[in-house]
Amino acid sequence: MARIVMKFGGTSMAGIERIRSVAARVKREWEAGNEVAVVVSAMAGETDRLVNFCREASSLYDPREYDVVVSSGEQVTSGLLAIALQAIGVPARSWLGWQLPIRTSDGHGSARIAEIDTTALNASLANREVAVIPGFQGLAAGERVTTLGRGGSDTSAVAMAAAMKADRCDIYTDVDGVYTTDPRIVPRARKLKRVTYEEMLELASVGAKVLQTRSVGLAMKENVRVQVLSSFVDEDGEAEPGTMIVGEEEIGDMERQLITGIAHDKNEAKITLTSVPDKPGAVASIFAPLAEAGINVDMIIQNIAHNAGSTDVTFTVPSADLARSIDVLNRAQGEIGFGELVHDTRVAKISIVGVGMRSHAGVASTMFTTLGERGINIQAISTSEIKVSVLIEEDYTELAVRVLHTAYGLDAPEDAAA
Amino acid sequence: MARIVMKFGGTSMAGIERIRSVAARVKREWEAGNEVAVVVSAMAGETDRLVNFCREASSLYDPREYDVVVSSGEQVTSGLLAIALQAIGVPARSWLGWQLPIRTSDGHGSARIAEIDTTALNASLANREVAVIPGFQGLAAGERVTTLGRGGSDTSAVAMAAAMKADRCDIYTDVDGVYTTDPRIVPRARKLKRVTYEEMLELASVGAKVLQTRSVGLAMKENVRVQVLSSFVDEDGEAEPGTMIVGEEEIGDMERQLITGIAHDKNEAKITLTSVPDKPGAVASIFAPLAEAGINVDMIIQNIAHNAGSTDVTFTVPSADLARSIDVLNRAQGEIGFGELVHDTRVAKISIVGVGMRSHAGVASTMFTTLGERGINIQAISTSEIKVSVLIEEDYTELAVRVLHTAYGLDAPEDAAA
Repeated sequence: MARIVMKFGGTSMAGIERIRSVAARVKREWEAGNEVAVVVSAMAGETDRLVNFCREASSLYDPREYDVVVSSGEQVTSGLLAIALQAIGVPARSWLGWQLPIRTSDGHGSARIAEIDTTALNASLANREVAVIPGFQGLAAGERVTTLGRGGSDTSAVAMAAAMKADRCDIYTDVDGVYTTDPRIVPRARKLKRVTYEEMLELASVGAKVLQTRSVGLAMKENVRVQVLSSFVDEDGEAEPGTMIVGEEEIGDMERQLITGIAHDKNEAKITLTSVPDKPGAVASIFAPLAEAGINVDMIIQNIAHNAGSTDVTFTVPSADLARSIDVLNRAQGEIGFGELVHDTRVAKISIVGVGMRSHAGVASTMFTTLGERGINIQAISTSEIKVSVLIEEDYTELAVRVLHTAYGLDAPEDAAA
Repeated sequence: MARIVMKFGGTSMAGIERIRSVAARVKREWEAGNEVAVVVSAMAGETDRLVNFCREASSLYDPREYDVVVSSGEQVTSGLLAIALQAIGVPARSWLGWQLPIRTSDGHGSARIAEIDTTALNASLANREVAVIPGFQGLAAGERVTTLGRGGSDTSAVAMAAAMKADRCDIYTDVDGVYTTDPRIVPRARKLKRVTYEEMLELASVGAKVLQTRSVGLAMKENVRVQVLSSFVDEDGEAEPGTMIVGEEEIGDMERQLITGIAHDKNEAKITLTSVPDKPGAVASIFAPLAEAGINVDMIIQNIAHNAGSTDVTFTVPSADLARSIDVLNRAQGEIGFGELVHDTRVAKISIVGVGMRSHAGVASTMFTTLGERGINIQAISTSEIKVSVLIEEDYTELAVRVLHTAYGLDAPEDAAA
């Protein structure tokens, strides 16, 4: 007997037929003698509908009332899944965020889970009841409804698993696992059996959007074994195994790859400030106002001073923040003292990720050589302990991902390819 | 300064534009210095959508989970109205059923309000905040969500007004008040300035569906002054007065009419059992099994025994219960010992209602004479202290209502007619 949290996203909950399929899958885990808590999203499209109502009502909506409105989508699907489970003979009940309760910060619209009271829930599970829990919602200290921000149901599921000391947190999504890279770009991409929390975090943060980044960070912190698997392949009642996200110590040496995955991200924009005075404090005067505006600067290169006392500074920001960044920088022009501001959104960030990097030198140079051989110019580089990212011209994205996938030996054998 | 409860139905809440109109109307009461609580329904059509989800999920749905699902519609509109009020400078917040809380029985799907805690609410109102309260929902003893049954938001509003000791409970609907009869049948029907609780109860119970019957009963018990008025006529910002529902003592003698209104109801079916043994206990053996099945029998006539030892018994039941009634009676045929069961749904009940009846004789005979002169045959009669109802052939419904409206002097003057 194990204690399992199962999480189903909006596509899996879109309509009663699909909710019935979810119920059937939950029933199998329950029949196997497991204690099961299910965390559900709202029906696909419902949260958008509710968010739009709030925006229509006021562009400056009160986030406390926004939370009252948008949390209702998960309330509906939890009640419906409980009904669908009962209909096939599985005792079940819904537990709303305020009923458990799931205590959160009072950061309405993007609250953080502080504590989950599992007393009543444990009694219910011991009684062989399946618990159905709306994701995304919680309760702030003033007894008001909160939500965790978009994609928050993944975080709800991991937090539930941690609080319940669950053996596993199964996240059912519309992909069947984590791949070495985007299979739409590289048909010979392979599904990973295991990936470490750290790798998953780096992959998620650079555009492989399988799980919400926050949920992976929480899983790592709380040591929750997370499995990503598909809610759709299961026609004969057998679930195909997905990808387990685990601690590094669980991955055996034999299994360990140098590089685990290759990610790409087209949502960055490059800004270059020319003729910045080459003196102490100049760089701080650029990035301090951006930080104050809450804009996340990623890659930074400061060129060697090309003429007496001045230099160019290049960096990237999320494309969505480009207009605001330009505004912030222009207003600080006097203080920074730059010449021109040049920006470019036709860039892409390509990242190689793998914990194997820690113990191997020369990983990055393979990347630079491989791209260089194809005439792909590297505009910026950033590295972390288990990741190397380069900024290139957007048009080369697919080519770069494909050649790197081959160069690092990630291609599936010919006969295993899709 | 007064303390007011305003209630808006689903049509008034259908979409952000209408919610904005509601907010504007609430603002006027608030700006006049009043303390205002607003009770809202779900957007028109939303409760049906949610109920259908539950039915689709299981025909035998758990009413506790049904309540979780269907109560979400009012949660959405309360949050949105709070946002819309804030957008026009009115401080407002939503109070969900479990937040106040509104304590109810545990009769899920049709719970009854037991007690409303107004401590937090009063503090908020004293602080010049408008309270927005979802109708239809409450909280049972086990901290689970309940709903009050369809149309329950009227009851929520009256209960809130009673708990808050409000000066007035204004129910905004898609009609602009209570009329002497259905204006679609009698164009010269007049809007009543005042009607007593008792009259309103009788009118509601015989088909003038302006307010949910339960809410009128509660208003009478708690002595809440209820006003019915339109949410739509108000183009120049001035609200047209509607109909006040008040205690009998508030209606002056000058104002008092013999008959206040004429109602009709086509949702009754007539059943006749022939050759029922004319002996003690025979009638009880007919109505006991119907009562056990929860079927509400209305008008009853036992004909004079037409031949030795047997008689015909005629009565009406709601059309919706006809099939079940036939089934119940056929199964009890041995015990009752009737000959044939004849049924007829092509009947209508016409009722004259008025507290003036108490002090005037001859009211009913005017009704019988008027109908007789038009050749309308009366199939059954029932009376209460302030109501006389007759059962007639359905085809004569409109004619009967029209001639009675004239006979009792209810027609508006020619020049005031619509």
